[in-house]
Amino acid sequence: MTETSGRIARHRTADARVALTLDGAPLASAEVVVEQTRHRFLFGCIGFDLIDHANGTAADPERAARDAELWEGVFNFATLPFYWGRFEPERGRPDTERLRTAARWFADRGHPVKGHPLAWHTVTADWLLDLDNEAIARAQVDRIRREVADFAGVIDMWDVINEVVIMPIFDKYDNGITRLCRDIGRIPMVRMVFDAAREAGPNAVLLLNDFDMSAAYECLVEGVLEAGIAIDALGLQSHMHQGYWGEEKTEAVLDRFSRYGLPIHFTETTLVSGEIMPPEITDLNDYQVDSWPSTPEGEARQADEIERHYRTLLAHPSVEAVTYWGMHDAGMWLGAPGGLVRADGTPKPSYDRLHRLVNTEWGTPPTAVATDADGLLRLTGFLGDYRVTHRGREAAFTLAEPGEVRLAAALD
Amino acid sequence: MTETSGRIARHRTADARVALTLDGAPLASAEVVVEQTRHRFLFGCIGFDLIDHANGTAADPERAARDAELWEGVFNFATLPFYWGRFEPERGRPDTERLRTAARWFADRGHPVKGHPLAWHTVTADWLLDLDNEAIARAQVDRIRREVADFAGVIDMWDVINEVVIMPIFDKYDNGITRLCRDIGRIPMVRMVFDAAREAGPNAVLLLNDFDMSAAYECLVEGVLEAGIAIDALGLQSHMHQGYWGEEKTEAVLDRFSRYGLPIHFTETTLVSGEIMPPEITDLNDYQVDSWPSTPEGEARQADEIERHYRTLLAHPSVEAVTYWGMHDAGMWLGAPGGLVRADGTPKPSYDRLHRLVNTEWGTPPTAVATDADGLLRLTGFLGDYRVTHRGREAAFTLAEPGEVRLAAALD
Repeated sequence: MTETSGRIARHRTADARVALTLDGAPLASAEVVVEQTRHRFLFGCIGFDLIDHANGTAADPERAARDAELWEGVFNFATLPFYWGRFEPERGRPDTERLRTAARWFADRGHPVKGHPLAWHTVTADWLLDLDNEAIARAQVDRIRREVADFAGVIDMWDVINEVVIMPIFDKYDNGITRLCRDIGRIPMVRMVFDAAREAGPNAVLLLNDFDMSAAYECLVEGVLEAGIAIDALGLQSHMHQGYWGEEKTEAVLDRFSRYGLPIHFTETTLVSGEIMPPEITDLNDYQVDSWPSTPEGEARQADEIERHYRTLLAHPSVEAVTYWGMHDAGMWLGAPGGLVRADGTPKPSYDRLHRLVNTEWGTPPTAVATDADGLLRLTGFLGDYRVTHRGREAAFTLAEPGEVRLAAALD
Repeated sequence: MTETSGRIARHRTADARVALTLDGAPLASAEVVVEQTRHRFLFGCIGFDLIDHANGTAADPERAARDAELWEGVFNFATLPFYWGRFEPERGRPDTERLRTAARWFADRGHPVKGHPLAWHTVTADWLLDLDNEAIARAQVDRIRREVADFAGVIDMWDVINEVVIMPIFDKYDNGITRLCRDIGRIPMVRMVFDAAREAGPNAVLLLNDFDMSAAYECLVEGVLEAGIAIDALGLQSHMHQGYWGEEKTEAVLDRFSRYGLPIHFTETTLVSGEIMPPEITDLNDYQVDSWPSTPEGEARQADEIERHYRTLLAHPSVEAVTYWGMHDAGMWLGAPGGLVRADGTPKPSYDRLHRLVNTEWGTPPTAVATDADGLLRLTGFLGDYRVTHRGREAAFTLAEPGEVRLAAALD
């Protein structure tokens, strides 16, 4: 066992002894089948591509159904888009119903959903430019209250605000959110949007999210926490269009950002299976190419890197979620071959690799096990939900915390 | 007049009408000599090299006296070193007397003195490594209280804490201050040291100082201000060993850091008159060369750049001080030819350029002027103190604010 595997085992698995009973008596010396039905760890992916499928409006329903199957084959946590400029391009006509249907599709299948983002200077509503800063602030607060309330019970996790480090000094184009943030300051901006989200969704999980992994984000987080603003989880982006970070950088980032005692979500992870974007590009949006193909060498590299990245993240106890930023090459941000599935719908090696990790190495597929003479089922498994079956009877249990645990489960 | 000159005039000069009287009557239609005796703007320089001179312990007293004359020819504001590891290498034996004598030397000549720094992870006391973090914090607070109290009335301005952005993640070597800052966080660290300095010197001017001009320092400043910590002035370093920033970058920095409404001090300015340090060096301390000579081309460039830099800074109303980081090449940080005076003691073109700017273009050397029939002296001058003389009689007045002003002064 490698040192990383050891840490993954320590932080992610439980050694369970489950006392199984059938009709009130211990199920002694019996063969049962045990399987994990859900990971506690959030293996996330954006669900943008499945919105049409969920709404029954996919142009190619068969292909959409295949994509949905591929998605659910690996992932258990969806991020849906709430970019203000697209969600409400015309003031007062938000895209609520379509998004709610999509969110329900995931939620009904047991996959928690996160909305992304409630406040951001990029892709924000153009009509904010007609307002003064006070009116922009009111519109922003109202927007947050509306979305958090409208989606409560279906979406209870939000990237409340995105990329605050750069927000007040963003200079690519004029926009209402940069104007407001520059006027009132970063921390009052964060306080305002978190207060609005908290009020509308007292039980929602609220994230601060950024791509800036430098000391700037540390300083922002420390200022926000000192100001008494309650962040439920810290979002770290890791779009690696310019190359895989490697274990050392990833561990250093985890070391620096775990100091706050907050759960960490790797909110936006991309690894490309084609050429690497040149290092001199500082804003990834500046890289515009006609064609960015996936290549066999790139696909082999991507599969290795995705495995290394996920292993590194699961080995750190602060990480609770990793969201891959796009299962499918079709329609991917920047046209990058960052998906786990090619534009033609066939899985890349990275898909198979992640599938194997999530479902086999880290998961428990249906497995025959014998209980002992006292009816105890012994199992070492990743945290999450399990099902035990025995001759058509069924029991469920949950491994909630790492370490040794004793449980009881009665077969129905 | 260039646009920069116009802004310098607007922010730095007053149009004064001074009603001069002699023995109670207007000094009408008389010739007087007016001169500026002190700039309100702080044209600073480190005074490290003059500590021995002030203490009468210079190895070459004649040369030290010449250096002192050169220093006072341009500068009116001194920074003295309080690096803990050098000031108190053995716990309980601080170098107080020698530094106080040096500080008095400047103060007696009317030059305010700043102490640099009270808390910093670099060149800090090695003996902190023997303490636990609680004891390090106590020692740090005690040290600040002691220095601020011991020097009160001579030094009433302090770089309270230096380079907090990098402080908790500094990884060049283990040190007590990084340990402590990593443990308690940046903002509690800043609060602790500012509280100690404020308590010991309620009227002192207290600065936060950093070399990091990125959004990280903005985020730190915003967090510190939101936490209610009163910063009197914001220190921005500008060691330009890797080349002059240029007006555009300097103005962008001023634009970003003036948003907090705080006075800005350019605390550490260096421009080299030799080769430029390669851009790939990220920690300037890593650049170690056997010899880094001053060259004729480099000296011409340095003179132009120092003029451009100072013009840009004086044109921005938030800037109250610029401290040049070393008049003399001899003994300069990194062996860089960053002085205004060569190692052999002769002034470089940059010295002459800055001398002309400070004393002639921006200053008022003794100048004959006639009063009008009502005894009014008309003068457009840089803010600061002035002396008027007339046949052995003398009056003083101060231009305190930019714009038009009416004053009265009686010749004694």
